Amino acid sequence: MAKDFPSRAENYSQWYNDLVIKADLAENSAVRGCMVIKPSGYAIWEKMQAVLDKMFKDTGHVNAYFPLFIPKSFFSKEASHVAGFAKECAVVTHYRLKNSPDGKGIIVDEDAKLEEELIVRPTSETIIWDTYRGWIKSWRDLPLLVNQWANVVRWEMRTRLFLRTTEFLWQEGHTAHATKAEAIVEAEQMLNVYADFAENYMAVPVLRGTKSPNERFAGALETYCIEALMQDGKALQTGTSHFLGENFAKAFDVKFLSKENKLEYVWATSWGVSTRLMGALIMAHSDDNGLVLPPKLAPNQVVIIPIYKNAEQLAIISETAIKIKNNLQAKGISVKYDDRDTQKPGWKFNEYEFKGVPVRIVIGPRDLENGTVEVARRDTLEKAVYQIIDIDKKIFHLLENIQDNMFQKALAFREENTRNADTWEEFVDILDNKAGFIMAHWDGTPETEQKIKDETKATIRCIPLNNKLEAGKCIYSCKPSTQRVVFARAY
Amino acid sequence: MAKDFPSRAENYSQWYNDLVIKADLAENSAVRGCMVIKPSGYAIWEKMQAVLDKMFKDTGHVNAYFPLFIPKSFFSKEASHVAGFAKECAVVTHYRLKNSPDGKGIIVDEDAKLEEELIVRPTSETIIWDTYRGWIKSWRDLPLLVNQWANVVRWEMRTRLFLRTTEFLWQEGHTAHATKAEAIVEAEQMLNVYADFAENYMAVPVLRGTKSPNERFAGALETYCIEALMQDGKALQTGTSHFLGENFAKAFDVKFLSKENKLEYVWATSWGVSTRLMGALIMAHSDDNGLVLPPKLAPNQVVIIPIYKNAEQLAIISETAIKIKNNLQAKGISVKYDDRDTQKPGWKFNEYEFKGVPVRIVIGPRDLENGTVEVARRDTLEKAVYQIIDIDKKIFHLLENIQDNMFQKALAFREENTRNADTWEEFVDILDNKAGFIMAHWDGTPETEQKIKDETKATIRCIPLNNKLEAGKCIYSCKPSTQRVVFARAY
Repeated sequence: MAKDFPSRAENYSQWYNDLVIKADLAENSAVRGCMVIKPSGYAIWEKMQAVLDKMFKDTGHVNAYFPLFIPKSFFSKEASHVAGFAKECAVVTHYRLKNSPDGKGIIVDEDAKLEEELIVRPTSETIIWDTYRGWIKSWRDLPLLVNQWANVVRWEMRTRLFLRTTEFLWQEGHTAHATKAEAIVEAEQMLNVYADFAENYMAVPVLRGTKSPNERFAGALETYCIEALMQDGKALQTGTSHFLGENFAKAFDVKFLSKENKLEYVWATSWGVSTRLMGALIMAHSDDNGLVLPPKLAPNQVVIIPIYKNAEQLAIISETAIKIKNNLQAKGISVKYDDRDTQKPGWKFNEYEFKGVPVRIVIGPRDLENGTVEVARRDTLEKAVYQIIDIDKKIFHLLENIQDNMFQKALAFREENTRNADTWEEFVDILDNKAGFIMAHWDGTPETEQKIKDETKATIRCIPLNNKLEAGKCIYSCKPSTQRVVFARAY
Repeated sequence: MAKDFPSRAENYSQWYNDLVIKADLAENSAVRGCMVIKPSGYAIWEKMQAVLDKMFKDTGHVNAYFPLFIPKSFFSKEASHVAGFAKECAVVTHYRLKNSPDGKGIIVDEDAKLEEELIVRPTSETIIWDTYRGWIKSWRDLPLLVNQWANVVRWEMRTRLFLRTTEFLWQEGHTAHATKAEAIVEAEQMLNVYADFAENYMAVPVLRGTKSPNERFAGALETYCIEALMQDGKALQTGTSHFLGENFAKAFDVKFLSKENKLEYVWATSWGVSTRLMGALIMAHSDDNGLVLPPKLAPNQVVIIPIYKNAEQLAIISETAIKIKNNLQAKGISVKYDDRDTQKPGWKFNEYEFKGVPVRIVIGPRDLENGTVEVARRDTLEKAVYQIIDIDKKIFHLLENIQDNMFQKALAFREENTRNADTWEEFVDILDNKAGFIMAHWDGTPETEQKIKDETKATIRCIPLNNKLEAGKCIYSCKPSTQRVVFARAY
């Protein structure tokens, strides 16, 4: 496995790009800005999907599927949505190709022009709320708790694998409620589901908060978010949940007959996470030796590698290896036994280290004699000799330990890289020389936030939930402030 | 639940359309030809996906994801693909919207015109084989066994929910092999996987065969298919698997260094099933009372309904009901206990009958006294009284019995509706008055097949695998023939 790629210290950005490619997670496609998610990457995404999908269902949601295309006119219906939402969209204007008259290939058939252009969904609020009008008549139809797994397209000018691509995969929840209070509870619940997933599965600690008005989703009254810190000290928004008020219900005329027999507009939320989570997972944990995957999301949690001189020895080792494999699998642990003769053990060690497999078990002839195996953990690169007896329980606990250790390490990193700034000079100094999250007072105005962004590229990542109130002065305007908010440069 | 829809005998086509809508499976969207798959329908599709995905993985395949868009020029690269494949595609020509100068809504930004138009994938052979060029260098990279779950778009003029929609969901497998023989084995293996799924999960018997050259996939050397018979005697193609030869490898220059150190073109297959399977499932089994779902694909396999006069009675019944529910769930059976007080038992009976839940368990006060429950099966509408003791085992066996009965019933229907025709008159008479599969001799020429299609709308559904050879005369041309092939009118 190639390690000819820069260290994080040398060039973090290049390290990330190279790692994604060399670990076979994804690659750029022939279509500008669109990625191919390769089998190794997609297997991780599938694990993420399975966990999230179960979390959604456990909180009462069901899946459905809505059209890829949205009539152009729909975007104009919710005023702040169209004003605020990026207009960089893929536009379908024709529905037929024909043979070129010159015999060279095919051309667009100009006779097959659509009366109204269709937009490839950048997000589905409009088409879904247009549909909900037919589904919601009475309070008995509420709450409506629907999620969709889908691809979406936003025509990004600068793209990076997983972090920002023209097409990406995501889930989008769209719920409808009888009351404002219930919708807010839902938006907050889903934020907590995302935070639970990030921390307990991805092993990535996140701040939970709300966005400032400048950073709110177009059409939302409140945007909740989780924010994670990457190893280069930049923030990454890993999930958002929006309280949409009655905005989309009004735009698409979705009313219900209440228990009191009154026609009322429906209250809405939407929430989503995307393949961007893959970028967060890679950036948060991986090191100069390659990927480091948390056990709960690793497609292979354990790899077993035999060391042998000849076929006879391999046969004897395999007997033990397969027994161990079966024991581990019976405990729900995913195991790969790599007994390929086409590659040497050293090559395999590098390969699985680079691909981030959490635990490597090596069995050689001397191990067999001693009733032991050598166990290496990916997160710390430590090796130890284990007695084979009760190996399944030991590996099970080791995986739990790795999962926890990865979270604690990331948490410690975030705590070390979260700093208070009380003056503009301090703020700029931290940004330029240390990075990380900066807790600073802000006067609460969009104007100040914009100026700070223009001058430093730092944005307000979030206003933490249950934030401590504390009188202070805005680092930029020196006007009074009641609380510190979280600033950072971000992906 | 509304039963105000025509019977199959009155109007089979309307019966199907109404059933899909009234059973809340899917509906037409605001975008012409695109459907919304509603939660009740999507839950069945998810069960199908889970089973198929496991079958694919058990046969060594991995999932990946390729771009939604395909550069227009890619379609011209494989000559027979572009010639034969429908050119009704969604074409993306622009990548930005802007505010209309008149202030009324948004318009397409003409400055944001793509240099080369992008086609929304109607199928992904071209973009995938363009990608495989980078993945395949040596025999060690083969076989490459990749599947993708995705949405695709074919601009259909006449659409019907699930059966033919502009956008649909599917999986497409794309494999690469070192030898022709291995690719053919793969194409046949996947046909058998599909047939296994259709028969043992959907309870739909299928014929396995190859397509005549007229009906082959554009770019394929051989198209394998499974064909099912619907209750109106029309055929429905439920899955295809293609042996693509070296066509796409040549078009996209995908070569590998063989063990003998020679550069050779790669052999390809592709295979897919889609949300069309939902149409087949509904059409094959449902009756004038609504949906009939095979237990293995029913989101709820059992519903328990209490009959009670007051809250006190409900509390006592619920105790037993929940015990039964837990017992059934422990056996892996999915159960819904509907103790809603907002609906009467009769309404619930109709609702779950209409939605096709395989087994209904009713518990009333007298049942409790007797230690019994009333069990109704959806497939035959029969009712029986069961002792509660060992209810989990009994229901488990009942579900197996229903699954088997549904298959046997569909098989018997197909056998009754498969007829030999030896003359043109017989052929036309069967088509017009009986429908079903017709086994008839054909002279093997595309011209005759086309003429038969033009005159009768019947097509050759398949040439059965391991077909019995039998000398005869073509029903149309009277020229000699060596085997009967399967004709039918089809969806």
